[in-house]
Amino acid sequence: MNVCDIIFKTKRHEKLKEEEIKWLIDGYVEGSIPDYQISAWLMAVCFSSLTEEETVILTKVMRDSGDVLDLGGINGVTVDKHSTGGIGDKTSLIIAPVCAACGIYVPKMSGRGLGFTGGTIDKLESIPGFQVNIDFDRYIDIINKNGAAIIAQSGQLVPADKKLYALRDVTATVDSIPLICSSIMSKKLATGADCILLDVKTGSGAFMKNTDDARKLAELMVKTGESAGKKCRAMITDMNEPLGNAVGNSLEVIEACEILSGKEKGRLYELCMELAANMLELGGKGNIEECRKLAVNAIDSGCAMERFQKMIEAQEGDPEVTENYSLFDKPLYKYEIKADKSGYISDINSEAVGMAALMTGAGRQNKGGKIDSSAGIILNSHRGDYIHNGDVIMTLYSSSVSDFSEAAEKASDSVEISGNMPEVQPAVMEII
Amino acid sequence: MNVCDIIFKTKRHEKLKEEEIKWLIDGYVEGSIPDYQISAWLMAVCFSSLTEEETVILTKVMRDSGDVLDLGGINGVTVDKHSTGGIGDKTSLIIAPVCAACGIYVPKMSGRGLGFTGGTIDKLESIPGFQVNIDFDRYIDIINKNGAAIIAQSGQLVPADKKLYALRDVTATVDSIPLICSSIMSKKLATGADCILLDVKTGSGAFMKNTDDARKLAELMVKTGESAGKKCRAMITDMNEPLGNAVGNSLEVIEACEILSGKEKGRLYELCMELAANMLELGGKGNIEECRKLAVNAIDSGCAMERFQKMIEAQEGDPEVTENYSLFDKPLYKYEIKADKSGYISDINSEAVGMAALMTGAGRQNKGGKIDSSAGIILNSHRGDYIHNGDVIMTLYSSSVSDFSEAAEKASDSVEISGNMPEVQPAVMEII
Repeated sequence: MNVCDIIFKTKRHEKLKEEEIKWLIDGYVEGSIPDYQISAWLMAVCFSSLTEEETVILTKVMRDSGDVLDLGGINGVTVDKHSTGGIGDKTSLIIAPVCAACGIYVPKMSGRGLGFTGGTIDKLESIPGFQVNIDFDRYIDIINKNGAAIIAQSGQLVPADKKLYALRDVTATVDSIPLICSSIMSKKLATGADCILLDVKTGSGAFMKNTDDARKLAELMVKTGESAGKKCRAMITDMNEPLGNAVGNSLEVIEACEILSGKEKGRLYELCMELAANMLELGGKGNIEECRKLAVNAIDSGCAMERFQKMIEAQEGDPEVTENYSLFDKPLYKYEIKADKSGYISDINSEAVGMAALMTGAGRQNKGGKIDSSAGIILNSHRGDYIHNGDVIMTLYSSSVSDFSEAAEKASDSVEISGNMPEVQPAVMEII
Repeated sequence: MNVCDIIFKTKRHEKLKEEEIKWLIDGYVEGSIPDYQISAWLMAVCFSSLTEEETVILTKVMRDSGDVLDLGGINGVTVDKHSTGGIGDKTSLIIAPVCAACGIYVPKMSGRGLGFTGGTIDKLESIPGFQVNIDFDRYIDIINKNGAAIIAQSGQLVPADKKLYALRDVTATVDSIPLICSSIMSKKLATGADCILLDVKTGSGAFMKNTDDARKLAELMVKTGESAGKKCRAMITDMNEPLGNAVGNSLEVIEACEILSGKEKGRLYELCMELAANMLELGGKGNIEECRKLAVNAIDSGCAMERFQKMIEAQEGDPEVTENYSLFDKPLYKYEIKADKSGYISDINSEAVGMAALMTGAGRQNKGGKIDSSAGIILNSHRGDYIHNGDVIMTLYSSSVSDFSEAAEKASDSVEISGNMPEVQPAVMEII
């Protein structure tokens, strides 16, 4: 086989054979095919796309480039969830204990964030003592005992994706639906759960800016997962403003506690209940109506919060934080952003909020960078709220940055106030 | 500036600024921008193309990446010619002495061939003693004295093209009209002639398979040359069968001698007369009709052959070869291909003939490979000829290969014999 022939085929919209895709990816991972040929192929994929069949093959080849976890040691149906990412998305922290409380097993391996804010793993690390590097046997033990565990990905999973993603990141080849699908799904397939719920975000703050692309990605991921023998479902959910009130690391853990304790309701709560209900249905816990009731009851009964505390304890964190937020690192500095006129909040640009959060220290400016776990932003109001001139609309926190001028400008610019009530999308837009 | 932003712009059909193109190419040549980013950009160019303005800028930036020759030392108007390449194309060997005999100066720097057969330089090296590595001052001297010189390109010309071409070759990004244009024209601009005639081949044996693409390339090259202050013209010429009777190295020099001595007429002669006439017109020698007469007269009077002999002598070759072909290395082996039925020759696939010539030893299998200067193919008949069963249609020669079975099969397969007389294109199809 010859790399140029393969690149040419994709360039000319000709379908690659299974052995060609395998030879290409395996050759890249083992180093016999250089970056410059793969980046040319990736760019050709961005323009020519891949067929569904090619995407399935690519995903399986990527999955098989490293360890494929065997979750057979878990005593029941396992359900994983993946979100395509959005500002303030702390749903994993909430739905893992909710689902565990309802009797399904949630094995979650998450990544660290590079970008606006920390990933789920970074958020959990804001809990004093919390350990995310857990070996596989103990991971299985914790899941069997508490129904859920969220740990950091090990180095042996999907090396093909690590190498391809790093290359895509520096060659402007990230935005291809089959490449996004294979990247996400190869990892989900390698981490081994029986069922997978995909939360595909759409809107100004999401990677998929429009619903059509989100739907295409969702359909492709579901088909790919099913081709690999998994039960799969995707939900297209709104990301036209940050999710919930908090953007940051400990700030988001605190918000998760507020939801789990039943104190906070609203959009984030609604979304979490829908996600959890769908995971429960995938896991065989009844029809969607029954599963919705189970999820709501898990919160109302306190069972979900109890699970969350046990999860924290099992991973060496202090479960007391869930009731005493002062145990988190306290931010040293604070800055309030006030409305300069009265009206409806017609837009909150999520990317700008994310950027402002990054400026407070909540995210990593580069790989290996340090995160300020106390930093971030509280949104005191949301799209559609009517506010008065001088009302506090956002509060910025940081321990690492005392001069908020840059972050405040960015945050301030993210909000639009107008005379008209904006149309607000439902949290869940479609189920695929 | 950021490479990803530049790649993204091209990907989205956004026009690059001059400073962006300069930064990208200069960074690549000096090594601060890696292959894998450039190959992604090149693939994006293959899909999105570049505007005329971007192509002109790219070409100039490439030209300026190395030496730009100053031909001010030549005592008159200089005219260069470039062919996009075809099987059996020995026109440079013929038109350089023809034009020189008519009083214009032809400074030619040529490349070695990698592919089916040798390049012009390899062909000339089949002449005993002929030197192609001539220093610049001597090059100018020879041109002033004899009107023409054909030497090998020096290492200092257009390093950007060397690096980009090598990368395009292994990333399936050769077939882009703006990239082909910038590659050819950057070299033509760097070698310094006042006027440039471009011979753009089209047809089954050419890189541009169809006339539309050939026309696009021709127009773009002419505009690019003119933007850089050159007088430019392009001719679209037919390459639906090999050019002339000979494909090889000494075989092609011998055919050039046959044309220059007035013994061979036909399609190759016609083409050479048109190319020379256009070069003479570009060089200010009169209108096209007058220039045609000048070219024909240069052959008929023996002046062109005299110039060719002087060129050979000036470059240390033995001019006797032009009259005594036995001074060339003689091929040790010979193989005749005979027609297996009677009929018209309806097709001769140039690429297959080229491949067969390569198999006889006439070309390089890889960079730095050795060429058998005596090897190659004589076409005993052409498209449109009526032949009888058993007639010799091709003769294969070699000193390095005694078993012709593979080459003969390839050569045999290249010819199609049918009951109908095929339509034969004129040698010159369009002038741009």
